[in-house]
Amino acid sequence: MRKKVLVFSVLFLCLGITLFAQEGTGPEALGFSIDLVWMFLGAILVFIFQAGFALVETGLTRAKNATNITMKNLMDFCFGAIVYWAIGWGLMWGKNALGGFVGTDQFFPAPMGLDIESAGFYKSWFFQVVFAATAATIVSGAMAERTQFKSYLIYTCFISAFIYPIQGHWIWGGGWLGELGFHDFAGSTVVHSVGGWAALMGAIILGPRLGKYVKGADGKILVKAFPGHNIPFACLGVFILWFGWFGFNAASTGTAITNSGTIFSGNLIARVAVTTCLAPSAGALAAMFTSWLWFKKPDCSMTMNGVLAGLVAITAPCAVVSPGAAIVIGFIAGILVVLSVEFIDKILKVDDPVGAVSVHLTNGIFGTIAVGIWANAPEEGVLGLLHGGGFTQLGVQLLGVLSVGAWVAVVSLVLFFVIKKTAGLRVSAKEEIMGLDISEHKSEAYTGFQIFSNM
Amino acid sequence: MRKKVLVFSVLFLCLGITLFAQEGTGPEALGFSIDLVWMFLGAILVFIFQAGFALVETGLTRAKNATNITMKNLMDFCFGAIVYWAIGWGLMWGKNALGGFVGTDQFFPAPMGLDIESAGFYKSWFFQVVFAATAATIVSGAMAERTQFKSYLIYTCFISAFIYPIQGHWIWGGGWLGELGFHDFAGSTVVHSVGGWAALMGAIILGPRLGKYVKGADGKILVKAFPGHNIPFACLGVFILWFGWFGFNAASTGTAITNSGTIFSGNLIARVAVTTCLAPSAGALAAMFTSWLWFKKPDCSMTMNGVLAGLVAITAPCAVVSPGAAIVIGFIAGILVVLSVEFIDKILKVDDPVGAVSVHLTNGIFGTIAVGIWANAPEEGVLGLLHGGGFTQLGVQLLGVLSVGAWVAVVSLVLFFVIKKTAGLRVSAKEEIMGLDISEHKSEAYTGFQIFSNM
Amino acid sequence: MRKKVLVFSVLFLCLGITLFAQEGTGPEALGFSIDLVWMFLGAILVFIFQAGFALVETGLTRAKNATNITMKNLMDFCFGAIVYWAIGWGLMWGKNALGGFVGTDQFFPAPMGLDIESAGFYKSWFFQVVFAATAATIVSGAMAERTQFKSYLIYTCFISAFIYPIQGHWIWGGGWLGELGFHDFAGSTVVHSVGGWAALMGAIILGPRLGKYVKGADGKILVKAFPGHNIPFACLGVFILWFGWFGFNAASTGTAITNSGTIFSGNLIARVAVTTCLAPSAGALAAMFTSWLWFKKPDCSMTMNGVLAGLVAITAPCAVVSPGAAIVIGFIAGILVVLSVEFIDKILKVDDPVGAVSVHLTNGIFGTIAVGIWANAPEEGVLGLLHGGGFTQLGVQLLGVLSVGAWVAVVSLVLFFVIKKTAGLRVSAKEEIMGLDISEHKSEAYTGFQIFSNM
Repeated sequence: MRKKVLVFSVLFLCLGITLFAQEGTGPEALGFSIDLVWMFLGAILVFIFQAGFALVETGLTRAKNATNITMKNLMDFCFGAIVYWAIGWGLMWGKNALGGFVGTDQFFPAPMGLDIESAGFYKSWFFQVVFAATAATIVSGAMAERTQFKSYLIYTCFISAFIYPIQGHWIWGGGWLGELGFHDFAGSTVVHSVGGWAALMGAIILGPRLGKYVKGADGKILVKAFPGHNIPFACLGVFILWFGWFGFNAASTGTAITNSGTIFSGNLIARVAVTTCLAPSAGALAAMFTSWLWFKKPDCSMTMNGVLAGLVAITAPCAVVSPGAAIVIGFIAGILVVLSVEFIDKILKVDDPVGAVSVHLTNGIFGTIAVGIWANAPEEGVLGLLHGGGFTQLGVQLLGVLSVGAWVAVVSLVLFFVIKKTAGLRVSAKEEIMGLDISEHKSEAYTGFQIFSNM
Repeated sequence: MRKKVLVFSVLFLCLGITLFAQEGTGPEALGFSIDLVWMFLGAILVFIFQAGFALVETGLTRAKNATNITMKNLMDFCFGAIVYWAIGWGLMWGKNALGGFVGTDQFFPAPMGLDIESAGFYKSWFFQVVFAATAATIVSGAMAERTQFKSYLIYTCFISAFIYPIQGHWIWGGGWLGELGFHDFAGSTVVHSVGGWAALMGAIILGPRLGKYVKGADGKILVKAFPGHNIPFACLGVFILWFGWFGFNAASTGTAITNSGTIFSGNLIARVAVTTCLAPSAGALAAMFTSWLWFKKPDCSMTMNGVLAGLVAITAPCAVVSPGAAIVIGFIAGILVVLSVEFIDKILKVDDPVGAVSVHLTNGIFGTIAVGIWANAPEEGVLGLLHGGGFTQLGVQLLGVLSVGAWVAVVSLVLFFVIKKTAGLRVSAKEEIMGLDISEHKSEAYTGFQIFSNM
Repeated sequence: MRKKVLVFSVLFLCLGITLFAQEGTGPEALGFSIDLVWMFLGAILVFIFQAGFALVETGLTRAKNATNITMKNLMDFCFGAIVYWAIGWGLMWGKNALGGFVGTDQFFPAPMGLDIESAGFYKSWFFQVVFAATAATIVSGAMAERTQFKSYLIYTCFISAFIYPIQGHWIWGGGWLGELGFHDFAGSTVVHSVGGWAALMGAIILGPRLGKYVKGADGKILVKAFPGHNIPFACLGVFILWFGWFGFNAASTGTAITNSGTIFSGNLIARVAVTTCLAPSAGALAAMFTSWLWFKKPDCSMTMNGVLAGLVAITAPCAVVSPGAAIVIGFIAGILVVLSVEFIDKILKVDDPVGAVSVHLTNGIFGTIAVGIWANAPEEGVLGLLHGGGFTQLGVQLLGVLSVGAWVAVVSLVLFFVIKKTAGLRVSAKEEIMGLDISEHKSEAYTGFQIFSNM
């Protein structure tokens, strides 16, 4: 009797669950749907980064190179998507080899089933490819106004296929750094410092734009500024980047499923949204006030770079710090970016037309270290110096900064050097003065609009 | 026996529920996740308003002030976010005091748990901060081309920290107006008319731009138009605002959870999307035809303001009116905005460079009143004059318009007056003619592009 | 006894289900909420197409017509939304009549309940209206720089009210083509080729812009290029379109609900995102390399059209092909668009200022046929020539291309002809030379910016 009752109970329960499961409304299926929508949303928000970078870089450089820089920003995504599908994904997310150094399968992936594994793969790939493209596109700004178009294309294939994925494997793909507890929630190191290191190496190997550092009659070197030709473009770009960054950071949870009452990673989304709102706000304030004190006027380019600096710096710690800490981190980032721009331009005399190195490298490093200082997330096991974590987390963060830096700096230096010696890296002086729009693309960006000779 | 069966049944049922709850897939948790994604989406859509306003205001003013206006649009968000976190949120959403006048706790909020309360707070804060920033940013357009940058920053901190939150508390934060049944679904009054009132007071205290109203030889005052320098920017701004407005209105449901077959607020999302699509369409048509009849040609600025007028007007009633009523409301708004622009410019002789007062104040008031006329939502308890509600709702709506108007007008008038007498509100005549880009920021927006002397 | 146990079991089970259903958290209700968010998201992403098209068309034409083209892009949405609500929706989605030729009810729809049917209607309408507006807006580019504004408005009402909805009924609305198994997932034919056919007919009836085809002294016809006046605008437009296209294609699933482990349409979202990422990337590469080989330099306009061509071509097959096939389809599309632009311009001598016909018609047709070749989706019942489907699918696809082509070409030809003979279609030569901004709108797009005489 009892058994029969049991059978009935189970039967009805199963019936109920089955009814839910049918038509895709079972709880597990619903959760998968929510995640699908969430990760799709996150990915397209990161995709729109490409428009943001294109606008910032176009706006902050000269009109005679505007077509070239938009083309570079468009094509690094297009090439990047295809090589990351063919090669990069496998190196980053494939089966571990060489002690966590590199992935070794899943090249040219093409599952065609409508099962949940295929869907899961596509969902992840789409989210990952836009991150890879972000690392690549950072470089175009630092190398603007003097790089050969075809050489830039060669470089961009390499970074998306090899340089980015391999270090990505170390940290996010199951490799050795992640195993050590390195915490980089959305990519201050994995994405931004990678782009930043490559940008720095590229700018060094290329050399400055003509007329940038001129020796005066007294033998002293004069540092000339080339102001951008469209500040509203740059500002729109900053807004678009910030808009996209909410997806970049918040969707790095990888899921939106939240369990009620107890710890669950989906809860992080809301916290990340808030830190990603406050840190760049503080970054803008800090950069504006710094420039105001230093140059006597609130400088718009610096302020915009302050927003971006705050965004880069909060990218690693966004999920493990409080709103107050986010403001502190953003504020420091905003000061740092101004100091870094001045240091790189005036002291190092490396010509980075849009400040990409100061935004992405300086603050990518700072943000990564910030985890080791301000992290306050015992439930996630990440505690910084100020919250009882001692130097453990800080040490691992530094190790990550150094090893990724070494990897990217060395490989991209070699890459740019080889390109320089083979295909050639820089356009001729004549072409540079003429502008890359005409010399590289036989067209002007603003036909019918008068442009001053902008040397 | 029966008892045992009962025990078994309950046991299995619980087992089932527990299985669902694990891994965050319980129904309640799933609902929270959906809401999280929804509110996040809504918030970032409202965030992108900042880009929309920056573009509209930049496009409709002169090239020599383009950097200044983008800076203002950027910084009112950055300052706003930080002061709304520190002070504004607490005043708006804190514990009721002084008979529903103001909130009194939750200043500098920083919960660090991963529990559902913390997540709920962050979710709400993120959605609210972008609304506060919207109210603030409306003002920059009306005060464009002649306001000192530092004074604008002072003003923007005050509106985001005090002026906006306190009336927001009255209506949305559990205060006295909400208790009376005042219905403002997404903020025709709470957001737009607040910005509009402050804009009007600012424009009055500042006075018109140099050369705007000139006395002719015959003693009659000549009203000069200063056309904007980039119509495509303005149009892109309108599209971005409309895009964001779908989130502004639809996510004001506060939830996306919908129950099947019976009444539930989540259903409103779809209705709101449709009314937010139709009203601005009708607004554009009406403004275009009005300008066509009046000025003999379909005017682009007026038409764009017609879109925005329709959006502002449908913001309060978007959830309680039918598609047909949305078209009627939008159409009236489109006519109103043209009349209002002409009235303020030609009769009142108040200089509002972008028509911000006509868009946000005139139509903020009209939209709030429209609830009292066209509302047809018995299930939500909101019925207007035309649908059997008599004058009850209409009366409450008028009370809200008047009391919020009095609050904002008086306080912002005092604020602008105090700023004028202390820090100073307006740049010098020389600086105004030179353009605020150079005088306030030592830079041009379009270096290398020739700009006509644009006085 | 057994019966009682049964009763108890059922009772508790029901109790459990009821508990879930309360507060809108029942599985069915949750699924509805997810779909609501998903379709809303998809719709606003398609909405932003309007900004994308406005920027591409403005950027690729001359500065003297910039206000006019933005106005056209704004107003075709505003008129389209209202007529599609009044008439178009009913013709497309109303009750079948005349053997699947047209829908016949649901005109001026206005359900006011908060039940799930009303919500479902509004959800669907919002998603459909943005598709209708896309078909309409494609035409403005091909007819740019010489069409009377009022005539364009007449045309746009007709396409959104009649031309688009009727063929849409055939394929998506339950009509005869859909019944035959015609597969057009997101509208290579339904949306893009419809816009493309109308664009071609419009451009033919209008004739070329003044000075476009000039007879030289030797009797040979010289084909003049009128380069666009703002390439960064066009590029931003392309990024915005691509961004929106992820919603256009992926939300064409109509649902985001996914069942775990077995086939379900929601799974398609992830696959569609990937194909919609790869095909336009390959399209850009192909168009760039083709232009590089042909014109000796990588041409930016061609490359951007390569992105759009890849997007149009993958629109029909996006859900039924593998990533590899998406790359192949995109690559072919990128070559096709360059050939088509040259053919239409140099051989046919039809003046299509932005290449709209080559992007939307040529590749709309190609994408529709591509389903018949590369489809590999046995679970969805769509198999192309290369995957064992024989010529069956291909035949149906060709039938669809021809019948929709005949419908749109004939009706729009008649429409444009009637407009030409009554209201007039083209501006006067004087107005065309002056620019449509001044002649049609009494205003300039860039007041205060110097513009070269751009004839």
